[in-house]
Amino acid sequence: MRIDGTDWRTIWRRADGSVAIIDQTRLPFALEVVTLATAAEAARAIAGMQVRGAPLIGAAAAYGMALAAAADPSDAALAAAAGVLMAARPTAVNLAWAVEAQLSALRPLAPDARAAAAFARADAIAEDDVARNTALGMHGLALVRAAAEARPGPVQILTHCNAGWLATVDRGTATAPIYAAAEAGIDLHVWVDETRPRNQGGQLTAWELARAGIPHTVIVDNAGGHLMQAGQVDLCLVGTDRTARNGDVANKIGTYLKALAARDCGVPFHVCLPSPTIDWQIAAGAAIPIEERAAAEVETVAGPEGPVRVVSPGSPVANPAFDVTPARLVTSLVTERGICAASPEGLAGLFPEHAAPAARSA
Amino acid sequence: MRIDGTDWRTIWRRADGSVAIIDQTRLPFALEVVTLATAAEAARAIAGMQVRGAPLIGAAAAYGMALAAAADPSDAALAAAAGVLMAARPTAVNLAWAVEAQLSALRPLAPDARAAAAFARADAIAEDDVARNTALGMHGLALVRAAAEARPGPVQILTHCNAGWLATVDRGTATAPIYAAAEAGIDLHVWVDETRPRNQGGQLTAWELARAGIPHTVIVDNAGGHLMQAGQVDLCLVGTDRTARNGDVANKIGTYLKALAARDCGVPFHVCLPSPTIDWQIAAGAAIPIEERAAAEVETVAGPEGPVRVVSPGSPVANPAFDVTPARLVTSLVTERGICAASPEGLAGLFPEHAAPAARSA
Repeated sequence: MRIDGTDWRTIWRRADGSVAIIDQTRLPFALEVVTLATAAEAARAIAGMQVRGAPLIGAAAAYGMALAAAADPSDAALAAAAGVLMAARPTAVNLAWAVEAQLSALRPLAPDARAAAAFARADAIAEDDVARNTALGMHGLALVRAAAEARPGPVQILTHCNAGWLATVDRGTATAPIYAAAEAGIDLHVWVDETRPRNQGGQLTAWELARAGIPHTVIVDNAGGHLMQAGQVDLCLVGTDRTARNGDVANKIGTYLKALAARDCGVPFHVCLPSPTIDWQIAAGAAIPIEERAAAEVETVAGPEGPVRVVSPGSPVANPAFDVTPARLVTSLVTERGICAASPEGLAGLFPEHAAPAARSA
Repeated sequence: MRIDGTDWRTIWRRADGSVAIIDQTRLPFALEVVTLATAAEAARAIAGMQVRGAPLIGAAAAYGMALAAAADPSDAALAAAAGVLMAARPTAVNLAWAVEAQLSALRPLAPDARAAAAFARADAIAEDDVARNTALGMHGLALVRAAAEARPGPVQILTHCNAGWLATVDRGTATAPIYAAAEAGIDLHVWVDETRPRNQGGQLTAWELARAGIPHTVIVDNAGGHLMQAGQVDLCLVGTDRTARNGDVANKIGTYLKALAARDCGVPFHVCLPSPTIDWQIAAGAAIPIEERAAAEVETVAGPEGPVRVVSPGSPVANPAFDVTPARLVTSLVTERGICAASPEGLAGLFPEHAAPAARSA
């Protein structure tokens, strides 16, 4: 996406063999680029959320494996790097997916061929992400267009957290239909949930929508239900960090509350997911592990001059980072292959190659 | 309630005829007392949320009228003060109630008797608040006790915003059953919603629970639904700024989302309200005006060194301060007269003197 007239991605290769990222912990107050020279640096960037969002975490992990192969292509070194990278964030399925894709592709190769193959595979993972998000956006565009045709005035879209281009290599997931709709000339306005505790909505989604010139308004996470009651939301578009085979979706903490309000108010609630986000091994959302992150994320808020304490000193804090929205609250899943019901049948219909063995043999 | 061994209230009279308050915009980082010498200062303290919470706003407005009568007891001066005070906050019904109670009591009196009468009435409003909250707490104690007897381990209570003693003259509304239960020796733990944008939960409720030695944990507003899904909440206790005759409750923005999660997860959702919070003139919640507050409350967060910007610079912000939780989501209303269903019949049963004229003549 463009920033002040220049095309950017969230991660790219440099000529010197290193990898560059936008440091998302510095946004929106500063646009800074950080260099990753080793797998350990990639893991630290993932754990510290300099790169975040399931698809971008996958690409960063793939480049991390490539950096590891460039430093030491031995089986032992690659296995060690894989362990370090996979421990960086527990919830995002893309991380394990990308690391395992690299491992299984590199093991059959001669060690001196591994680095080049790993970088090529990381490039392909990044390009595939952009292609998937672009396709997903064209399918989601139909939902926005239908809302635009249903009544006059701008289409009112609510989103939670940042499932924007900053959460991917480019285009975003929940934002892909928004950018596609804006490019198609549809009049729209986005309600941006602040998304405590890390404020990815108020700090990242707002920043990227502003750079793209898309009308938007930041609200606290508490406000979305009231807006839906007041008829001020036409549809919700959110991303997901991991989707179970039955259509349950794990996404940023608070997503479940918005899905409940959408159901109560008759507002469609769509989840946008490139297929690597689907964990075909998990039958239902209850089995998705929920990451508990550091108390400091709640106790302090990031500002331009650094973190500021906002919780009463001495009071304990809990910080679950994700929740599971049951499939019954999800109107539809928007993928790169099209739109389907949030159900085992819906997902299996779009991705028959992943359908359960019993179903395939039937 | 006690702070470090000393008994405090949120508002009290001084020997010099002025009124003192705890400046709640300075908590939890500093405990500072502010003097109110005029009705305009009382109105500013209400508008600026140095005093907040429907019952305390009512007491502060009553003292504001007394300060006005002491300065100039003429009808014109009292009417002007009433106008200034009533404009300070639009949603809290206690404000209009207290101001009108003063006006109608003072008008028949000779001007030179008005100041003393107004202070006596303000004192009575303050004492009535404490008595009501104490009685409400004893009724609510039964709900906490029932939860304690239902399973081993501490009773897990979730609350939103600050409906604590800081929101009243003393004891609080949603906290009154909590303090009563703790004093009765019941083992409990409170999940405290941070309550963006003003963080009254993380900054005020956490502070007062810590001072009272009550186990508690601060969570972001997004987290409560996940905790309820995980079976970690036994009951929700919240306050209300205005209750309609049918049991719909206007409370701090985000309350509706927690009520939806409680319903979805089978968690009882109780609303604690002293009766002045009931607006008998309003049939249903849709007629309750929702205050839109300043964007700066969302754009910046209060910290020990002053406000810090947290929203991406240049992005617009909306800040609705309350939402309406429909009565169908409220398990029960807890009042100073007992517990009732959130329905016209429930409220009319406890407060027959306010039942609709048709019902009274029947």
